[in-house]
Amino acid sequence: MTTGTRTDTGEIIGILGGMGPAATADFYAKLVATTPGSSDQDHLRTVIWSDPTIPDRTEALLGNGPDPTPWLLDGSRVLREAGATVIAIPCNTAHAFVPRIADHVGLPIVHMIGEVARHLATLSPRIHTAGLLATTGTVRAGLYQEWLDRFGIRMVLPDAAAQDAEVMTAIHAVKAGTRNDGTTALLTRAARRLTGQGAQAVIAGCTEIPLGLPADAVEVPLVDPALVLAQALVRRARAKGRTE
Amino acid sequence: MTTGTRTDTGEIIGILGGMGPAATADFYAKLVATTPGSSDQDHLRTVIWSDPTIPDRTEALLGNGPDPTPWLLDGSRVLREAGATVIAIPCNTAHAFVPRIADHVGLPIVHMIGEVARHLATLSPRIHTAGLLATTGTVRAGLYQEWLDRFGIRMVLPDAAAQDAEVMTAIHAVKAGTRNDGTTALLTRAARRLTGQGAQAVIAGCTEIPLGLPADAVEVPLVDPALVLAQALVRRARAKGRTE
Repeated sequence: MTTGTRTDTGEIIGILGGMGPAATADFYAKLVATTPGSSDQDHLRTVIWSDPTIPDRTEALLGNGPDPTPWLLDGSRVLREAGATVIAIPCNTAHAFVPRIADHVGLPIVHMIGEVARHLATLSPRIHTAGLLATTGTVRAGLYQEWLDRFGIRMVLPDAAAQDAEVMTAIHAVKAGTRNDGTTALLTRAARRLTGQGAQAVIAGCTEIPLGLPADAVEVPLVDPALVLAQALVRRARAKGRTE
Repeated sequence: MTTGTRTDTGEIIGILGGMGPAATADFYAKLVATTPGSSDQDHLRTVIWSDPTIPDRTEALLGNGPDPTPWLLDGSRVLREAGATVIAIPCNTAHAFVPRIADHVGLPIVHMIGEVARHLATLSPRIHTAGLLATTGTVRAGLYQEWLDRFGIRMVLPDAAAQDAEVMTAIHAVKAGTRNDGTTALLTRAARRLTGQGAQAVIAGCTEIPLGLPADAVEVPLVDPALVLAQALVRRARAKGRTE
């Protein structure tokens, strides 16, 4: 019998979470559901640092609140010390801060937004235009714009009024645990307006959105970045397992 | 702006999980849902060590597999080093190993099975008999028996054939991700047989069971130990917050 479980070879997924906590729980459930296998022992070892006290990312990007970078670095250190071999951040807006932490965490970060752009580029029929439902922070930071540009995909967005009254209102309701049919109606309306502008896929670009918008509410593919990230992590771990 | 998030006062919940991973994800979702508050920042900082490679607890208790104690100690050390102030183990069967680790982890463990017994004793009308659906390992280890005895509650169990053909079959289906209506039918049949034996409440005493048995399938209260544990952690953190 070995006592050295943490020194075993193989991937240990580090999840930098808490942004928000419900989205972190949902992401971990998706990672487990995405992992092939029929017994506990087939699953990936995972360490999750879920710090809901990390300052609001959108507020920081809008200049209204403290910079969350030190909290993200602190959480990354916890994950590294716990033995994580890779970091995943199941929060779209937090990716605006990835350039500030990437050189300091000492571990690869699987970039959720990059993975979504890559995923969209593989869909058939080919996607020329994608719609984005995300926090105002994510939109302003240009995170999806930058990555979709690289893959030659045009991005369409809600107008400023809908961004505020529909998208942000719904995100706050999910975070507050007060989501209801009205929340789903707000997001459905915003999503359908994007398909009206030509979106052939809609990115649920804030981890709270899939919790309020069922996939069948939209007539085009609704891309869940958390699920795309989970699938990317599983592929990476399997590739690593095969080469060790 | 402070950079010392980990040195803040206040509770940091440590979850020793992975037994199985789906149950850990479900437990964390319940902890988040149980926590009062309307923004991310109201939630509890949490660190989760989810190690699905921990050897099967039931197999160990039946003498058919390695002792998981070293893995549990290793995970507890990860949680302590990450700053956890309390440990929760969302796996009933793993509680058979709590006496072997309790003196070595250096942190309090909120005992899920003790909390369930306490919870049952507070229900009105008073519960004299409770039924238990759990792994064969949990049943053989006498974990619920011991705690229900302390509170003067009689325990009824499935017979050996039903334990094997209904309860363990359903638990394995949930772990394998192959649960379906048949799984729910197996657990419903086992639960109704317990109410036929006088159970005024049924303990879903394996964290996989609530994933396969909806609360309304049984005509008496179905007690979910994961939810009871989550509520106990929230009460503890709030009490600690008030005294600091």
